[in-house]
Amino acid sequence: MAGGSGTRLWPLSRELYPKQLLKLIGDKTLIQQTFLRLSKIISLKNIYIITNENSAENIYFQLKDLGAIKENIIKEPFQKNTAPAIALVTEIIFRKDGKAEILVSSSDHFIKSDLEFIKMAKTAFKIAEGDFLVTFGIIPNYPSQEYGYIKRKSKIKNQKSKINVYGVEKFIEKPDVKQAEKLIKQGAYWNSGIFVWRAKTILDGIKIFLPEVYKTVETYFQNPNEFLKLFRSLESISIDKGVLEKSDNVAVLPAKFDWQDIGSWKALYEILPKDSNQNVLNEHAISEDCSNCLIQGTKKRIVVALGLEGLIVVDTEDAVLVAHKNHSHKIKNSLEKMRQNNFNQHLQHPTAYRPWGYYTVLEEGENFKVKKIVVEPGQKLSLQSHKKRAEHWIVLKGNAKVELNGKIFNLKHHQSIDIPIGAEHCLENITRKLLEIIEVQSGDYLKEDDIVRFNDKYGRN
Amino acid sequence: MAGGSGTRLWPLSRELYPKQLLKLIGDKTLIQQTFLRLSKIISLKNIYIITNENSAENIYFQLKDLGAIKENIIKEPFQKNTAPAIALVTEIIFRKDGKAEILVSSSDHFIKSDLEFIKMAKTAFKIAEGDFLVTFGIIPNYPSQEYGYIKRKSKIKNQKSKINVYGVEKFIEKPDVKQAEKLIKQGAYWNSGIFVWRAKTILDGIKIFLPEVYKTVETYFQNPNEFLKLFRSLESISIDKGVLEKSDNVAVLPAKFDWQDIGSWKALYEILPKDSNQNVLNEHAISEDCSNCLIQGTKKRIVVALGLEGLIVVDTEDAVLVAHKNHSHKIKNSLEKMRQNNFNQHLQHPTAYRPWGYYTVLEEGENFKVKKIVVEPGQKLSLQSHKKRAEHWIVLKGNAKVELNGKIFNLKHHQSIDIPIGAEHCLENITRKLLEIIEVQSGDYLKEDDIVRFNDKYGRN
Repeated sequence: MAGGSGTRLWPLSRELYPKQLLKLIGDKTLIQQTFLRLSKIISLKNIYIITNENSAENIYFQLKDLGAIKENIIKEPFQKNTAPAIALVTEIIFRKDGKAEILVSSSDHFIKSDLEFIKMAKTAFKIAEGDFLVTFGIIPNYPSQEYGYIKRKSKIKNQKSKINVYGVEKFIEKPDVKQAEKLIKQGAYWNSGIFVWRAKTILDGIKIFLPEVYKTVETYFQNPNEFLKLFRSLESISIDKGVLEKSDNVAVLPAKFDWQDIGSWKALYEILPKDSNQNVLNEHAISEDCSNCLIQGTKKRIVVALGLEGLIVVDTEDAVLVAHKNHSHKIKNSLEKMRQNNFNQHLQHPTAYRPWGYYTVLEEGENFKVKKIVVEPGQKLSLQSHKKRAEHWIVLKGNAKVELNGKIFNLKHHQSIDIPIGAEHCLENITRKLLEIIEVQSGDYLKEDDIVRFNDKYGRN
Repeated sequence: MAGGSGTRLWPLSRELYPKQLLKLIGDKTLIQQTFLRLSKIISLKNIYIITNENSAENIYFQLKDLGAIKENIIKEPFQKNTAPAIALVTEIIFRKDGKAEILVSSSDHFIKSDLEFIKMAKTAFKIAEGDFLVTFGIIPNYPSQEYGYIKRKSKIKNQKSKINVYGVEKFIEKPDVKQAEKLIKQGAYWNSGIFVWRAKTILDGIKIFLPEVYKTVETYFQNPNEFLKLFRSLESISIDKGVLEKSDNVAVLPAKFDWQDIGSWKALYEILPKDSNQNVLNEHAISEDCSNCLIQGTKKRIVVALGLEGLIVVDTEDAVLVAHKNHSHKIKNSLEKMRQNNFNQHLQHPTAYRPWGYYTVLEEGENFKVKKIVVEPGQKLSLQSHKKRAEHWIVLKGNAKVELNGKIFNLKHHQSIDIPIGAEHCLENITRKLLEIIEVQSGDYLKEDDIVRFNDKYGRN
């Protein structure tokens, strides 16, 4: 599941660049970590990713080298919470294999030990064979208000594993501290949102408890237009509330692995390694007399922090967040203000990743835009044209193969070329080194949607 | 006096871009405000500015439209505190007019009312006619530790003005709070660093108490090499310590104007207008639950502040400061770290101002640099060449007249030109609108000192 939009870790995450795409811990992004974890028990061709139109390309870009199958990236047409998304992917899998067993996982959670996870997953698969809807309960280590809880019932007997599992009495959304403390005393678990079941078992549950959802995903293959229409009108509902809470075959499996949602800057601060002043600093930050802070500068910009206590300071190309840890959840109001004032910072980064590399907007003004474009070795942008803008390219580094109205040009370092309005053009890096160019765009209209693609090696036309 | 280097208001000020060049209050920079204030009692041709090699060009750029005379901008060869600087300018003035009376003022202090200042200055000139060294004492309104103090002696009689002036017992450098409180009780003043005297009176004092300084500035006209040699070996000393403290003809004039040194972010915060939460915010900042903060974003980057109390947050193109108000003076250590780690941020801004306009470095990499260059209407860069870099120009906005190896090219919007290594070239804006271009530099060596100037309308060759 990779369909969320990123707001809570703004400015690193953006509406169009959600949390799973970020490297928050270690040198891999959360979705890369999740994909690698799952690939240890599930063959690559059987890993499906459900996301939305906006994130699909970025996700494929991050996972292609890890072996993700492009066709297995499913785009949900509207965000309707987890039940419709899970129903859709389950339908797709069930059509291929009526006996399939499924593990459902979020793509943006942090799990410390893959080994522990896999062990638990194997146990869950065994339990699921008894037609149980298995959910992983995390044993809480503090009364968090950021997580949902699972209140358990008595132990379930007659199971195929020796490990204890329990019936579920209730799913509780983010409680207050007192309620959380009480729940923990009662042996409740954090709801990890990780599930294991047979495709048939969960589809049966959806058919009974969410018949509209079932009806919708049944039309996916036969009648795509009808599917879109029905999906659009579905109510948003989670699989927990929509199916599990009503089913009598739910089993909660107490999980022993170290799990974190990383739902806020505060949560991220908690899990990152700290220095002797309890600070988390990156190499672009300079600090004096700071404690309990998370401070991140960027390659292009230094952050100097003096006399701070308990603050989050995160710098990005076009936005800086300075927040007290206990106030960082108030970010939503600020994002709303940006939306209302036609800022762009809530929505996306100035740097955008593409299957061929990435670009950064360096400068924008009336009728012009300046981009730095980086093309990876062996990669190629689509053969394209623009109706409203001319472009001018200068090579900074590497060699560019340029096709312009059918002619081929090979440009070296410091050479340049003009791309007139309407011209069919294509930029390619046939070398083994990075290609970097400056693109200056001129025209009345300079948005990304002014593009006609004639040929695209990544299937985007 | 405009020879300081800016560290205390970093990152707005830089070593090569000191405080007097900043617009901290209102729409004029501090040196512009100072120049305009002085021009109300001193004719333009008699206003002299002493600064250093690094700031001279920026100062002229800011003052030329206000009527500053280029030849009156004197460059001190080394920073040796105020005594040698004042001695040098006084020598220059004295040679022209042996009867000159001089008002000495810092260029980076804030004075609210020009009217009040001028009234006091006129009084001071009268007193100075009696061969007094007049210094302005500011009546303290709190026991500041950031200012120097003047401990007064008894009232001076036999003066030409009816206003009371006092003898000076002692100049005290920044005291601690207790000492400051005691000084205020004793009727001490803040030392404003504003002086009025006859050229001859102060030169006589320098001759007696700082004979080395006197000897040095005497060589300025006759023997420039000797002057440089002597100046280099001078001790750094202030005019207060070097002359005034030892003279018996010093008079302190209690000044009634509102004066501020703005020696720290905290001091700037105090004098700026605040909103109902006691915050000073600019239009590029979004805040929630903040109080007593100064928060400045930039046009290109938004600052979001959540739950902050008493903080200074100042963003610039290449550096962000986040400091508690009571720790903002610790900035010096951080600047030292930048120096040691070969950062550039302590030294200068990515945007540099020139007599013809300004440029901003947008991107730098191995063997390339990308600049945006803005040329003001009617302005012209020097006819120049570079030994180690080629340049490529694309016009973003406006029209460019380009001279390249003797040929003239007129480039419009989106047109471009190559400037090979060694070519004589010149960029000019002969229109009434701004000219904006992108310059891509390529070469092994891309520093600003790779320039041969053949012809420069601002006399820089």
